[in-house]
Amino acid sequence: MKPNWLKRLLVGAPMPLARAHHERLSKTTALAVFSSDALSSVAYATEEILFVLVLAGAAAMQLATPVSFAIAGLLVIVAVSYQQTIHAYPSGGGAYIVARANLGTLPGLVAAAALLTDYVLTVSVSVAAGVAAVTSAIPAVIPYRVSLGVACIAAIAFANLRGVRESGRVFAVPTYLFIATFAILVVGGLFRLLWGEVQPLSARPLQAAAPLTWFLVLRAFSSGCVALTGTETISNGIPAFKPPESRNAAITLGWMAFILASLFLGITVLASALGAVPVQEETVVSQIARGLYGTGLFYYLVQASTAMILVLAANSSFAGFPRLSSILARDRYAPRQFATQGDRLVFSNGVLILGGLAALLIVLFRGETHALIPLYAVGVFISFTLSQAGMVRHWLAGRGPGWTWRLAINGVGATVTGVVTLVIAVSKFTHGAWIIVLVIPLLVMACLTIHRHYMEVANQLSLEEYGDPPVISRHTVLVPVGDLHRGVVRALQYAKSLSPDARAVFVETDPARTRKLEEKWQKWGCGVPLVVLTSPYRSLLGPFLEYLDHVQNQRENHMVTIVLPEFIPARWWQHLLHNQTALLIKGALLFRQNVVVTDVPYHLKR
Amino acid sequence: MKPNWLKRLLVGAPMPLARAHHERLSKTTALAVFSSDALSSVAYATEEILFVLVLAGAAAMQLATPVSFAIAGLLVIVAVSYQQTIHAYPSGGGAYIVARANLGTLPGLVAAAALLTDYVLTVSVSVAAGVAAVTSAIPAVIPYRVSLGVACIAAIAFANLRGVRESGRVFAVPTYLFIATFAILVVGGLFRLLWGEVQPLSARPLQAAAPLTWFLVLRAFSSGCVALTGTETISNGIPAFKPPESRNAAITLGWMAFILASLFLGITVLASALGAVPVQEETVVSQIARGLYGTGLFYYLVQASTAMILVLAANSSFAGFPRLSSILARDRYAPRQFATQGDRLVFSNGVLILGGLAALLIVLFRGETHALIPLYAVGVFISFTLSQAGMVRHWLAGRGPGWTWRLAINGVGATVTGVVTLVIAVSKFTHGAWIIVLVIPLLVMACLTIHRHYMEVANQLSLEEYGDPPVISRHTVLVPVGDLHRGVVRALQYAKSLSPDARAVFVETDPARTRKLEEKWQKWGCGVPLVVLTSPYRSLLGPFLEYLDHVQNQRENHMVTIVLPEFIPARWWQHLLHNQTALLIKGALLFRQNVVVTDVPYHLKR
Repeated sequence: MKPNWLKRLLVGAPMPLARAHHERLSKTTALAVFSSDALSSVAYATEEILFVLVLAGAAAMQLATPVSFAIAGLLVIVAVSYQQTIHAYPSGGGAYIVARANLGTLPGLVAAAALLTDYVLTVSVSVAAGVAAVTSAIPAVIPYRVSLGVACIAAIAFANLRGVRESGRVFAVPTYLFIATFAILVVGGLFRLLWGEVQPLSARPLQAAAPLTWFLVLRAFSSGCVALTGTETISNGIPAFKPPESRNAAITLGWMAFILASLFLGITVLASALGAVPVQEETVVSQIARGLYGTGLFYYLVQASTAMILVLAANSSFAGFPRLSSILARDRYAPRQFATQGDRLVFSNGVLILGGLAALLIVLFRGETHALIPLYAVGVFISFTLSQAGMVRHWLAGRGPGWTWRLAINGVGATVTGVVTLVIAVSKFTHGAWIIVLVIPLLVMACLTIHRHYMEVANQLSLEEYGDPPVISRHTVLVPVGDLHRGVVRALQYAKSLSPDARAVFVETDPARTRKLEEKWQKWGCGVPLVVLTSPYRSLLGPFLEYLDHVQNQRENHMVTIVLPEFIPARWWQHLLHNQTALLIKGALLFRQNVVVTDVPYHLKR
Repeated sequence: MKPNWLKRLLVGAPMPLARAHHERLSKTTALAVFSSDALSSVAYATEEILFVLVLAGAAAMQLATPVSFAIAGLLVIVAVSYQQTIHAYPSGGGAYIVARANLGTLPGLVAAAALLTDYVLTVSVSVAAGVAAVTSAIPAVIPYRVSLGVACIAAIAFANLRGVRESGRVFAVPTYLFIATFAILVVGGLFRLLWGEVQPLSARPLQAAAPLTWFLVLRAFSSGCVALTGTETISNGIPAFKPPESRNAAITLGWMAFILASLFLGITVLASALGAVPVQEETVVSQIARGLYGTGLFYYLVQASTAMILVLAANSSFAGFPRLSSILARDRYAPRQFATQGDRLVFSNGVLILGGLAALLIVLFRGETHALIPLYAVGVFISFTLSQAGMVRHWLAGRGPGWTWRLAINGVGATVTGVVTLVIAVSKFTHGAWIIVLVIPLLVMACLTIHRHYMEVANQLSLEEYGDPPVISRHTVLVPVGDLHRGVVRALQYAKSLSPDARAVFVETDPARTRKLEEKWQKWGCGVPLVVLTSPYRSLLGPFLEYLDHVQNQRENHMVTIVLPEFIPARWWQHLLHNQTALLIKGALLFRQNVVVTDVPYHLKR
């Protein structure tokens, strides 16, 4: 426990369990807390549509507006579907819970695996896009993109290890700042567009690199679907709302969807009108803000609020991923370490794993949002589909009041999101979606294997049908010695206190040393008999193991404790200067029945 | 002991100690065994002289012959000096032993550190030069130079881990093949030179990059001094000769020096006559052989025998380094693991460290002989100087028969090698010799620190002046439990067998679980009392440690054994799925007095 002060400094003082209850959120605060993930996609969704369409040249980019209207329509369907879920699962209706309850374990695990991949990608994509907002404003830092992204993830992970419970007010400022600046940007821009004041950005000649096909339009649509990520967040957090919880949550979801759709459509229309083209050095939003308002105070406000809401979006995954993995662990589908709450009431292992994976993705994909986007959204839409399909079964089974139209809504939702899932998976398969298509089944298999193991362990350890446990018939204590010094004397005293049948064992490699040891033994042997074994190959372990066999073969359930005299150096590097014989003996006996290995430490002072 | 079969396959069956005695070598066999290191430098020494002189242009290269005559003169002085050492230390007179015995500990350690660095460099330089011999003949493999070098070191290390005791005859073939082919190359070449048959190689126009200064000539001389490395080898191996050992060893050393000087001078004269210029792609020896005999069978024989003797030279360090480090370990100046003989009678740790360091140098210096040479030879000449200075003191102290002229010989040797050491260190300081000048004192400091630690440990463990050891006044056994299952039952039984004062300790985080546990305890608690502790911060460790304090504070020398129920999964990956609470508890208690921590394993089957 030596480095405790370090942990305290970094993580803070431990929190008592009593502080675990949540503050209840008003609708306006809840909107700020839960919508950063969804709203932040406004920062890059339009750009991702353009990034695909630009392949077919300037004319094709005019398709961005109809594509984004289709996506906005999809958003409405998904939001209305989730409002049904909110009413049906007032204690929290994440895709894993809904799919598992209504469709069974396997669909539940698929939804969980999809969500887990998605949380990781939310962090990577949001941070990459946030860094892009910064590098657009300050091009000098472009070369440090990857380092900035990794540092940003580390900072968020860190804040979460300390526990960011005081969230409500902290989140309200940047979220509403983002909504306000983007509303000004969009509304002001549209007015000036109507008045005819808007000058198109300096047109660069565009060469079509690919023909304009339906497949390309579908790819653009798929890329734009990242706008929908985060729509489900509110359905996980219903108990945090003030009562009536479900009603307030549903209303907040409606507002969130409206704001998201408006800003997204507005940015897309402006991008088309200005003729913004995605380039490496500057984001489309930055181009629009600069084109409309110049590189002034408002421009920097737009970039800063974009970066901030993207950080908040990444942060929201740091709540979602550890919570979901702890639920999986509780259900025995994930390593139980994920269910361990640290002393700041945080599922620390989930935070660390999420941060590590997201940072790895940033490094592997060189911090480029475009490169990560094809991996994103597949997971979200799989979980949407399974969640809505679960709701369909829910209404069919329950048939509560108004079940027919609720069934219809979720049925439409399930069908549409299912089709979109296929569209995304196919149209972006070769661009990276294949990774997710591969990872999800692997994760599900891992969950099942882990579950089987935990069940078998519980079974093997169960006291039911245990009958009478085998009783220890005799207890022999062996002390392997190489010399006789204070540490060995201590071990011999300890061995004698454990059992009357204690023996010291010496493996002879040089008869002269044996004689010297036997002489010392007269005075310092504590009355413990000394067994001398010979070793033709200078192996210390071989003869000792043979002797152990010999002792244990004498009767059933003969327990043998091996007491190892071990001196503990005062400094870590001094460990390197001593033979690790104890480790060797432990390794050799790890799988042996009825053997216990014990170190008796003797502490050195310098 | 599971992976034993793997070790057996790689390393071979263990050897009994009885096989440790050496075969006695005749002079001709001994020459083959001990001279590979010295003779192999013929392959690169001339080239290294030219490599420096070429900086001052074509005319300067004519100085190679006088420089090499100076080096040959130095060789004669060193060889004659070492012949005195051989007579004075018939059981083996390495520089460490001679310097330590006559000059004291610090000079001895400096000599040892110098030799250790030198053994590492012998491997790196020999392998790099051996690879260069191969790549000169087969230019297609030049890009794989570094990998070839590392693979070669791995193979040699490997052979040495198996124990290459059957050395005599194995070494004779390549050594005499090398001597024979080089004798033909040199003698044949010189004859054709006298007859005027030799055509200079296609002269490339050379531009002087530096003026011809005395300093440059001294640098060329320093580089050429690598020819002397390995001269001391025979003085380490005197007991391996047939009697009269010292006489035979001295005669063999004389022959070795004569052969080395002849071949080295011959190659240098031929290189000058042919106008060979060092280039990256082909060694000077390869240029000479190709120029004189064309790219035929004899050419390939020269290259092959060069590569082979260089491998033998590297191999000789794999005898020297582990032996010296084991002597240092025996004297408590190096980690004792270096003194551990494996079951093939090899000091395996020395072999592994040497191989690792040499391979690292090959990688860091991109397998280039030229880049490594400035590091080489400093160490050799430091050890020469200290060894000869030690002999001077030896004769002054002993004054045996003929001590005056023996004193004179070693005096001249010490003075000359001392001056050369300075020349090498200064002239090559900025080219890499500084590394060795830095490493040697660091190694010496490490040796002294290690020695101090071992002495203090021995002191603290010594039974002299120990008086009456503190007696265990009472023994309490604590079993931390989180649940009650078969593994815990086993641990409770074991705890009861250790002491009548056994208690189970449960840290409560949820009162409902406590009640369930207490119910189970009625039936399966084995009569061990259950202590329940509360934990406001959900920490399991904190309350447990407080309770331990409470138990231990009751009296002096109260021994507490902590019995940890631990189930051992059947497969390695399953360990990842369980909390490592045991490790945490052990870590927390590592530095605590009068506490022993014991795992009681319960083995799972699947």
